[in-house]
Amino acid sequence: MKNLTLSVAFLLCSFVVFAQEEKKEPAYTDDDALFIREIYDQALTKGNAYDWLDYMTNNIGGRLAGSPQAAAAVEYTRQMMDTMGMEVTLQPCIVPHWVRGDKEQARVVNSKSMGTVELSILALGNSVGTDDFGLTAPVIEVKSLQEVMDLGIDGIKGKIVFYNRPMDATQIKTFHAYGGAVDQRVHGAAVAANYGAVGAIVRSMTLRTDDIPHTGSTIYNRLNKGVEPIPAVAISTMDADLLSKIIEKDKEVDLYFRTNCQMLKPEESYNVIGEIKGSEFPDEIILVGGHLDSWDVGTGAHDDGAGCVHAMDVYNVLKQLNYKPKRTIRVVMFMNEENGLAGALEYTKVSNQKKEYHLAAIESDRGGFSPRGFTMEAENEIFSVKSKKVIEWLPLLRPYGLELSKGGSGADISRLKSQKGLMLGLAPDSQRYFDYHHTPIDVWDAVNKRELQLGVAAMASMVYLIDKYGL
Amino acid sequence: MKNLTLSVAFLLCSFVVFAQEEKKEPAYTDDDALFIREIYDQALTKGNAYDWLDYMTNNIGGRLAGSPQAAAAVEYTRQMMDTMGMEVTLQPCIVPHWVRGDKEQARVVNSKSMGTVELSILALGNSVGTDDFGLTAPVIEVKSLQEVMDLGIDGIKGKIVFYNRPMDATQIKTFHAYGGAVDQRVHGAAVAANYGAVGAIVRSMTLRTDDIPHTGSTIYNRLNKGVEPIPAVAISTMDADLLSKIIEKDKEVDLYFRTNCQMLKPEESYNVIGEIKGSEFPDEIILVGGHLDSWDVGTGAHDDGAGCVHAMDVYNVLKQLNYKPKRTIRVVMFMNEENGLAGALEYTKVSNQKKEYHLAAIESDRGGFSPRGFTMEAENEIFSVKSKKVIEWLPLLRPYGLELSKGGSGADISRLKSQKGLMLGLAPDSQRYFDYHHTPIDVWDAVNKRELQLGVAAMASMVYLIDKYGL
Repeated sequence: MKNLTLSVAFLLCSFVVFAQEEKKEPAYTDDDALFIREIYDQALTKGNAYDWLDYMTNNIGGRLAGSPQAAAAVEYTRQMMDTMGMEVTLQPCIVPHWVRGDKEQARVVNSKSMGTVELSILALGNSVGTDDFGLTAPVIEVKSLQEVMDLGIDGIKGKIVFYNRPMDATQIKTFHAYGGAVDQRVHGAAVAANYGAVGAIVRSMTLRTDDIPHTGSTIYNRLNKGVEPIPAVAISTMDADLLSKIIEKDKEVDLYFRTNCQMLKPEESYNVIGEIKGSEFPDEIILVGGHLDSWDVGTGAHDDGAGCVHAMDVYNVLKQLNYKPKRTIRVVMFMNEENGLAGALEYTKVSNQKKEYHLAAIESDRGGFSPRGFTMEAENEIFSVKSKKVIEWLPLLRPYGLELSKGGSGADISRLKSQKGLMLGLAPDSQRYFDYHHTPIDVWDAVNKRELQLGVAAMASMVYLIDKYGL
Repeated sequence: MKNLTLSVAFLLCSFVVFAQEEKKEPAYTDDDALFIREIYDQALTKGNAYDWLDYMTNNIGGRLAGSPQAAAAVEYTRQMMDTMGMEVTLQPCIVPHWVRGDKEQARVVNSKSMGTVELSILALGNSVGTDDFGLTAPVIEVKSLQEVMDLGIDGIKGKIVFYNRPMDATQIKTFHAYGGAVDQRVHGAAVAANYGAVGAIVRSMTLRTDDIPHTGSTIYNRLNKGVEPIPAVAISTMDADLLSKIIEKDKEVDLYFRTNCQMLKPEESYNVIGEIKGSEFPDEIILVGGHLDSWDVGTGAHDDGAGCVHAMDVYNVLKQLNYKPKRTIRVVMFMNEENGLAGALEYTKVSNQKKEYHLAAIESDRGGFSPRGFTMEAENEIFSVKSKKVIEWLPLLRPYGLELSKGGSGADISRLKSQKGLMLGLAPDSQRYFDYHHTPIDVWDAVNKRELQLGVAAMASMVYLIDKYGL
């Protein structure tokens, strides 16, 4: 709390100090305010984001890396950017190809108090499956990775470990609550396997209490040498609460689950990169992007169809307003953010090899909700220099409800900060994000048209200012 | 736009100036930041707002003034406030009792290009109905009240006037867009009747294009002497667009509609007033409120069930934290905001008669969405004095995403400003409000639990600061 207050005070003071220092050379003009107003008018009345998202979700569907739908999304966004007159490149990358297989099943087996109880689960992404007959074992509830380590082999061996630490509802920004709980999903299975567990079941990453399990990746990179990966699933929060109560009452409870997921051989896929060369500073790149892949359940509307159409519409809106960029604008659809980051890693590698300079990058990967500003990051020693001008622009952004804060930008772009530019993340209102995240209900209907359009306008305004003034 | 920028700059400058002037007596302490953090923790984990809203919407339902459901809501909120230990009064007021009757019907009759076309409509509140056989007449499309006046009797007589000016999608705050279009719904029928129209059909007040008509009140107070009121209905935006196209193509189009609504005799109803006397300044009242009545379609979840449970939970949360107010806290559920304001008028009249002083009043009547701050109003000459301290508190509020601006407070409380206090309106994010406003889909499911809870916390924090420091 205090840190937050201080950071706000810092921004305010910075603004005042800058304003005093540079009275003779204002950070912006009245024309900028008018042009930003035009950007908003355009995005709210003539933008394409909502229609593009309709196509990507309702016509293409879920776009897990390696799937035919991911390939369709590559082709669709390539065509859209080509139609807008961008120079479009498909940048190859090798992605994992995980498939969910048959619908998952799980039940409490012969609870003394409740008999057989069916549970709502989803296999975690990249997880190994059970065998065809499924897996039955005693279940043990824990609240943390540390608790598993403390229980050791004696407590864990032969069991299904049930990670049940909820997200912290008192966090104002739900991403902080997510960050405080998601280690269970990402590392829970690997850590439990090290102590002889035969399966892992993880409370869904959401602040709601409902019957919808949330998938997401689990990774096995904490497995000790020689230890085999174990199957891992997410359980809905309602069923997590129920299972916890059954365990409390019955003490010894056997759980059955069956998953049919598997990792197939890697596939070639692509980042889709659209570019318009800058007229004055072509070597200074301003990137806007999102990730094209999504989970297979639902249709990846907020995560991250919204971010993809945000990024494409940023260029579309500026083009409709006949804006000619001085710097190079690059619209990037990253592949495989969800379960491997293959696209982002390849993009950064190639960019570094070419000694490119990303003056700025803006990622939208927090949903299509009403925008509340941007987070900013840069390498430590240059953050204050790089963020200075952006903070000076606050009076242009605040009328649209936008604020600035220091914080992570986005998984696909944050590595680019080694090129010494400023990385920004669009920060929409986060309250509803984890209602939909990685679920069958992350679909078209969950996105509000105006909220989506306002995200486009916020990003386009930032691109315009960075392009016009540099950093 | 410029005004907005300037007002933000004004707030910033004010803040800085105040901070410099009063260095020796800070506007708040670290303890305040900690207590506000406790308020948020409590509201997000132990608040009752969401459960109360569940009852008011799913068990009671739509609560139009004069209806049995409105009486149930009076009794329910009386009980809840009584349970919390407040001194509860039912303040009588006489409310209109309008009933919708049979489901409305409307169709284009024998369009040359499309034949018979069914249209989605809802009678406007307080409207007279058609007779049992309905009404058939040629339809004329207009965009404003002025256009009707310009067309005059020759152009309007014997026709159904179709008001079809959309809300302005380029407004960032959707209430501004609503304010720019709603004269058609409120006064359209009366103005058209003055020129001999036989009916009025009004484009629904929403920025969405969908098949859901939005009701809301029409008033006949602009009728010329001797002119009879005419039936008035709202049409969904999709059907408004369709009807407009048919008119454009066919030129002469007859419309049929039938409504069965009527105004019954007035009924006695009540404002529900819960009070806790202040320990030090009992004569300084801090009011928090919303309105208990809603439209009959839907269950009034955002409008204004959310505001009612916000207000009740403000006191609940402070009580749970064992906070003892120095000033008198009054939680008021106003009756009949939607179609007459009888409750607000009675409350103000009685309060003025008793020479009460409302130091501050906060109304929540803009939905249960993620809060973005407060609007503030006061009598002109005292606004800057009264808002000064509140602006100084901004550093305590900004970490929770709250900003301040000058603007209307709420229909139920704004008349109280004659008592020389400060009137505030909770300002949630407005983008989705008019998706639901006055429709069958303004129901429980449209409200997000956390967004609702954050509204409670924002209001409770403001009440706490005003109670502790005065204004």
